[in-house]
Amino acid sequence: MILPMHYEDVILRGLKEDINYLDVTTDNLIPEEQESDAFFLIKNAGVLCGMEIALRTLKFLDAGITVEILKNDGEQVENQDIAARVHGRTRALLKGERTALNLLQHLSGIATAAAQAVQLVKGTKAKICDTRKTLPGLRVLEKYAVTVGGAQNHRFNLSDAALIKDNHIDAAGGIEQAVSLLRSRIGHTVKIEVETRDLKELKQALKANADIIMLDNMSPVEMEKAVKMVAGKVPLEASGGITMENLRAVAETGVDMISIGALTHSVRALDISMKIKM
Amino acid sequence: MILPMHYEDVILRGLKEDINYLDVTTDNLIPEEQESDAFFLIKNAGVLCGMEIALRTLKFLDAGITVEILKNDGEQVENQDIAARVHGRTRALLKGERTALNLLQHLSGIATAAAQAVQLVKGTKAKICDTRKTLPGLRVLEKYAVTVGGAQNHRFNLSDAALIKDNHIDAAGGIEQAVSLLRSRIGHTVKIEVETRDLKELKQALKANADIIMLDNMSPVEMEKAVKMVAGKVPLEASGGITMENLRAVAETGVDMISIGALTHSVRALDISMKIKM
Amino acid sequence: MILPMHYEDVILRGLKEDINYLDVTTDNLIPEEQESDAFFLIKNAGVLCGMEIALRTLKFLDAGITVEILKNDGEQVENQDIAARVHGRTRALLKGERTALNLLQHLSGIATAAAQAVQLVKGTKAKICDTRKTLPGLRVLEKYAVTVGGAQNHRFNLSDAALIKDNHIDAAGGIEQAVSLLRSRIGHTVKIEVETRDLKELKQALKANADIIMLDNMSPVEMEKAVKMVAGKVPLEASGGITMENLRAVAETGVDMISIGALTHSVRALDISMKIKM
Amino acid sequence: MILPMHYEDVILRGLKEDINYLDVTTDNLIPEEQESDAFFLIKNAGVLCGMEIALRTLKFLDAGITVEILKNDGEQVENQDIAARVHGRTRALLKGERTALNLLQHLSGIATAAAQAVQLVKGTKAKICDTRKTLPGLRVLEKYAVTVGGAQNHRFNLSDAALIKDNHIDAAGGIEQAVSLLRSRIGHTVKIEVETRDLKELKQALKANADIIMLDNMSPVEMEKAVKMVAGKVPLEASGGITMENLRAVAETGVDMISIGALTHSVRALDISMKIKM
Amino acid sequence: MILPMHYEDVILRGLKEDINYLDVTTDNLIPEEQESDAFFLIKNAGVLCGMEIALRTLKFLDAGITVEILKNDGEQVENQDIAARVHGRTRALLKGERTALNLLQHLSGIATAAAQAVQLVKGTKAKICDTRKTLPGLRVLEKYAVTVGGAQNHRFNLSDAALIKDNHIDAAGGIEQAVSLLRSRIGHTVKIEVETRDLKELKQALKANADIIMLDNMSPVEMEKAVKMVAGKVPLEASGGITMENLRAVAETGVDMISIGALTHSVRALDISMKIKM
Amino acid sequence: MILPMHYEDVILRGLKEDINYLDVTTDNLIPEEQESDAFFLIKNAGVLCGMEIALRTLKFLDAGITVEILKNDGEQVENQDIAARVHGRTRALLKGERTALNLLQHLSGIATAAAQAVQLVKGTKAKICDTRKTLPGLRVLEKYAVTVGGAQNHRFNLSDAALIKDNHIDAAGGIEQAVSLLRSRIGHTVKIEVETRDLKELKQALKANADIIMLDNMSPVEMEKAVKMVAGKVPLEASGGITMENLRAVAETGVDMISIGALTHSVRALDISMKIKM
Repeated sequence: MILPMHYEDVILRGLKEDINYLDVTTDNLIPEEQESDAFFLIKNAGVLCGMEIALRTLKFLDAGITVEILKNDGEQVENQDIAARVHGRTRALLKGERTALNLLQHLSGIATAAAQAVQLVKGTKAKICDTRKTLPGLRVLEKYAVTVGGAQNHRFNLSDAALIKDNHIDAAGGIEQAVSLLRSRIGHTVKIEVETRDLKELKQALKANADIIMLDNMSPVEMEKAVKMVAGKVPLEASGGITMENLRAVAETGVDMISIGALTHSVRALDISMKIKM
Repeated sequence: MILPMHYEDVILRGLKEDINYLDVTTDNLIPEEQESDAFFLIKNAGVLCGMEIALRTLKFLDAGITVEILKNDGEQVENQDIAARVHGRTRALLKGERTALNLLQHLSGIATAAAQAVQLVKGTKAKICDTRKTLPGLRVLEKYAVTVGGAQNHRFNLSDAALIKDNHIDAAGGIEQAVSLLRSRIGHTVKIEVETRDLKELKQALKANADIIMLDNMSPVEMEKAVKMVAGKVPLEASGGITMENLRAVAETGVDMISIGALTHSVRALDISMKIKM
Repeated sequence: MILPMHYEDVILRGLKEDINYLDVTTDNLIPEEQESDAFFLIKNAGVLCGMEIALRTLKFLDAGITVEILKNDGEQVENQDIAARVHGRTRALLKGERTALNLLQHLSGIATAAAQAVQLVKGTKAKICDTRKTLPGLRVLEKYAVTVGGAQNHRFNLSDAALIKDNHIDAAGGIEQAVSLLRSRIGHTVKIEVETRDLKELKQALKANADIIMLDNMSPVEMEKAVKMVAGKVPLEASGGITMENLRAVAETGVDMISIGALTHSVRALDISMKIKM
Repeated sequence: MILPMHYEDVILRGLKEDINYLDVTTDNLIPEEQESDAFFLIKNAGVLCGMEIALRTLKFLDAGITVEILKNDGEQVENQDIAARVHGRTRALLKGERTALNLLQHLSGIATAAAQAVQLVKGTKAKICDTRKTLPGLRVLEKYAVTVGGAQNHRFNLSDAALIKDNHIDAAGGIEQAVSLLRSRIGHTVKIEVETRDLKELKQALKANADIIMLDNMSPVEMEKAVKMVAGKVPLEASGGITMENLRAVAETGVDMISIGALTHSVRALDISMKIKM
Repeated sequence: MILPMHYEDVILRGLKEDINYLDVTTDNLIPEEQESDAFFLIKNAGVLCGMEIALRTLKFLDAGITVEILKNDGEQVENQDIAARVHGRTRALLKGERTALNLLQHLSGIATAAAQAVQLVKGTKAKICDTRKTLPGLRVLEKYAVTVGGAQNHRFNLSDAALIKDNHIDAAGGIEQAVSLLRSRIGHTVKIEVETRDLKELKQALKANADIIMLDNMSPVEMEKAVKMVAGKVPLEASGGITMENLRAVAETGVDMISIGALTHSVRALDISMKIKM
Repeated sequence: MILPMHYEDVILRGLKEDINYLDVTTDNLIPEEQESDAFFLIKNAGVLCGMEIALRTLKFLDAGITVEILKNDGEQVENQDIAARVHGRTRALLKGERTALNLLQHLSGIATAAAQAVQLVKGTKAKICDTRKTLPGLRVLEKYAVTVGGAQNHRFNLSDAALIKDNHIDAAGGIEQAVSLLRSRIGHTVKIEVETRDLKELKQALKANADIIMLDNMSPVEMEKAVKMVAGKVPLEASGGITMENLRAVAETGVDMISIGALTHSVRALDISMKIKM
């Protein structure tokens, strides 16, 4: 689903930052022609993401490298699992190792957190989705990792869906005015979501025929009331201050979507290393 | 210390990812000429990092924006502190908010963790430093954030210092051979660090006259022995599996440096928001 | 609505193509310090688009240029109107003239065609929109010009809205299956449009609860039947083979949207020139 | 004649604009491994241009695609001709289709117009050439299409030939002064063309030994006088306001070159589609 | 004559290579706010070239720098001359010094050599010109420096003038065939030069009506015969193996142009330093 | 040691500068399918450098080219040696020849000068190294050529080693203060070199425990005294005004390193040509 043209620049930026002009240790100590076997070793349970990207990183340094993928993106992996085996120039493996792992560990960290969130809401109707809280230059990869973990993507950017917030409402003179004005101006393929902070605003958003309504920073009790009030007429998204701890309670209120910024803004890298056998 | 030419590309990548071609909500609901005040509100205690970068992000969208910085990079901030005030086009503020915060929160998260680590080793001789476990495209910024938090940078890339690992030692036929061969080949400005896994290797590294010796994944007990054996003749760096929990114990062994990958690979964003007053 | 960061690369590509390394005539015959007045002269009626972009082109060559905009994007202009006056270095004016005009004439050509189409459907409920038939590197600008002419944008790219075509339907095993499968997989902010070629497919798309239904290459007679069958339950988009000649007839069938590829794929540049007074 | 390094950036810009991060429809409905046959179907008579570029577009998305070219650049094609057949991943074909066609149709539109102009002047000594009225980022491709249609390229940019216009003449104090001054300053490989608006200026340009003389916006009657006056001593180029309607009349005046801006600034895309068989 | 858009990328590449992410000495020892005076000191006689480029380099690091230019591009400078004075942040001056000088010294070296060559042929009709023997990424600057030294530019690239060499002649079946075929195919603004190795080939080139004829690696005696044979009918360019030592002898043969690769391929940097006063 | 990702951009910049959009001579006279043999002919003795880079240049224009390398980087070559043979499309060979040679000749020129310097100091303990006096965009390649010639690299940029100069000393209040302050602030992998202009400064640098001491512009007599004073306690680098003429005398003073700016700032291209056989 993710194309090389979406991540090759990212890899090259990483490699150029890390190698600069030579690997002063490797280029002076490892013979140019020497080849080695290596493998990616999982050191903590989680969901793998970025395997092809990590391997592509190594191929930039040795086009002739051979790879065997044992675990694919989206698979649950356990401590001591081997995710992939490679064979190629030792220099290339040593030079590419860190950049490959930096990407693989970060993306697997996101996929793992997303999968954990999905697991936590199992049995409710709630779907988990991400936010725009991603790192510059990495959004495509980070949003991809979220889907690999089984969750969904919220809008990708400010162009592809409308989200009316308080500043927009103030400028338009009210929720109904904002939705109505916006509807008349945007293309017919764009959905309108309205952010609401209480049930009064929710009522207005409902009346305004928003396509989606966000319940922003509401308590589970309020959310439950909101779900009842809306009665399935429009999808409801819970957002703001949601953690792994309170996630289940939010899901049980009956909301349709729960968006979690921490999936991408506070990522814990999955522990993976690369072992090179001389 | 960090130049605009080092981060402007990062900002632009972030803005282009997030805006794509328009902000479908803002561009259709907020009048082009409207201006607003806004401020950056700290919502959790930590060390601020990236304030100028966040403000530069907004200036890319409205060159005429005016800013007042209340907290500088490196300052300890508390919940409800205001870090900066800005005034400019409302559209620009709404469009730039997310990208500015994504950078500010990530870098402040790193600086906060670095400061916490530095605090934990206070009173010992140990200095805290980072690793090469950074995200592609963000290394300059992430390494900068580490220094803003009061810690130090390990080597920036594979070119600027040598680190001899087991693969290099195997290829050279031993630690002494590796150091000696490398010394004869590299420029006179490059230091050589040797990674050792036990006291036997440490002894060899000492004999080889390494400039720095890394104690890799040793227990505090082993490290203490290492410190005694070396007796100040060469700086010792503890590395591998170091967490906020075991950091103090490591520092108390008497090592000179402690490198912590988690400072940059598992960052918890500092909670900061931007409030726009219409 | 369109930001400098969206078009500055386009301008620079144009200038570098056109100037390469010097203007062999101007740089050798016009004194470096000489300044001139110049103005943009409209030579054919139409809708202006790209005025700020054209002026930004000149400013790349002389940052000190002064400009007076007499006609803004979206204004109807007539033969012999003056759209803007500028004053600056003669060399800069001569070097930037062609690139500035190439952009201004192309975008004004699109805006003019869009406005003409909008005018032709006046009084019906149909809205005019564009397609993805744009030139590589120019999509943001061309889609902007369409809105300046008073029409609307269809989806910007393959990411921001789903359009199910025959190949997708075949792969999924039918329209209902395709919509249902897709709905379960995509984010909640993405609309689903289904392309239908006859009333039978239309019926299926209706049943499948598509968000929008495209009537592809249908005759006005068929479209009228489609409009009746759908009875306002879902927006209908007419598409395929629509020209300025048959546009009114299509609009009068009662469809909601009419998409026209020729707005951007077969543009007739608006005749505009730049006069430089020594 | 046109190298991949000249158009690969153009293709990538097009693909990135059109795909952004995924094809939300295709990536969710078409199995990753599925392959299809497809072919490029001509739907209007014209001259084909851009076939290899269109195929290269698809190869960016599936390096393993196989192609069979049935019609080459420069060939006259008729409605229902098949220009090329391809076989590859269905996802790649669906994702690349629009970008490939956008380029192929635009370039074929230019080649077709150029060929039509060449045909219209057949039997006269006049050659058809283009101008610098091209779209930013596309000049190499557009100028290539002009030659594929059988016409010739005027100067590629402001560096590779001199064209003295009224502003230059005013600055130099006259046509003779301008030519003479310029001749003394430019490299020996650069030709000097002078733009003249009447026979008086033409006489001066002749006396000044211009390498080429442009007859700017003259009527056919004036051009005929110009041709007689010049008597073959220097090539004459007719320029300004030339359309397919008046082209033959201009050619019959005996001028050597006729430059037509509309070849590239007002292109009518050739109707070509891509059919994908599941 | 040379635009910032032609050299800003070059400067930025230089600065990024040289600074990477910080100036570890300056950023740690010089206070951020400290300002200094500095000046560019000439340490060897020559022709200055690149003064504005050098100053632009410093401005990238401190936009508020003030400059006073005492010597302009093209001026003869002597040992101990001061070329420019600047005032700005000490850090910026120290960081930019090397990159600024690297450009200034290289370009001044070229201009100096060009001026020396021009001086050596004074009194003859020969003009000095450069070749395409330039360094990748620096052609615009290096060709500019040649003109600053008073010499002329040969063709800028393979597109803007034709040069028929032996391989082309062999492929076409002879000089006359080559010129005639090429003339029929190229645009009317392109000149044709023919490379000849002896008087027999020269005679053919004359007969073929070449626009320029190159005398390749001929001895002065042969060149003199060539000049007589051609008798001013077409410009003659001497090329191949020309050094400062044999240049005068070549010029005295009566040729029109002498092209010298060493002007750009074997540059001796002009000795210039930058003095920073604290 | 040098990776394609370090030089492919350089090659592409060179090719784009030199070809622009076509080779007007070759593309019109050489049949597209024609193939030729060619070889790189050495025309002056020296050390070869850049052979793979030159061949990569040709491969950008014809991916199917076959090559046979007869002389590798670092080999001494003599007049009339053949460095490599290639076979491929004649057009590609003719188009790539100049760019390939421009790189090959420049880098071989540097390697040759470096080797000459190394030869001149043979028998002394002095090592030869380069400086930061390189051309923007070419540092990686130029520094590589220095090592190919057998010399060593000084620091690559301002980040990877500290060099304390007079301005830094003045700001810190003395050499000892500067070294001590810097040591407390920089990472443990960075060496500190101090520039000294006389024996008094040298004594201070010694006392300050600098890692390396530079003797800047000292006479051989002074250097000898310096060597005695230091007595091997810290490496000494001679710098400033060193030429091939005075190099031996400097080396015989007993210094450890001699840095020579002219290795890269005043390069004499090695004479190499490419012969294409039809």
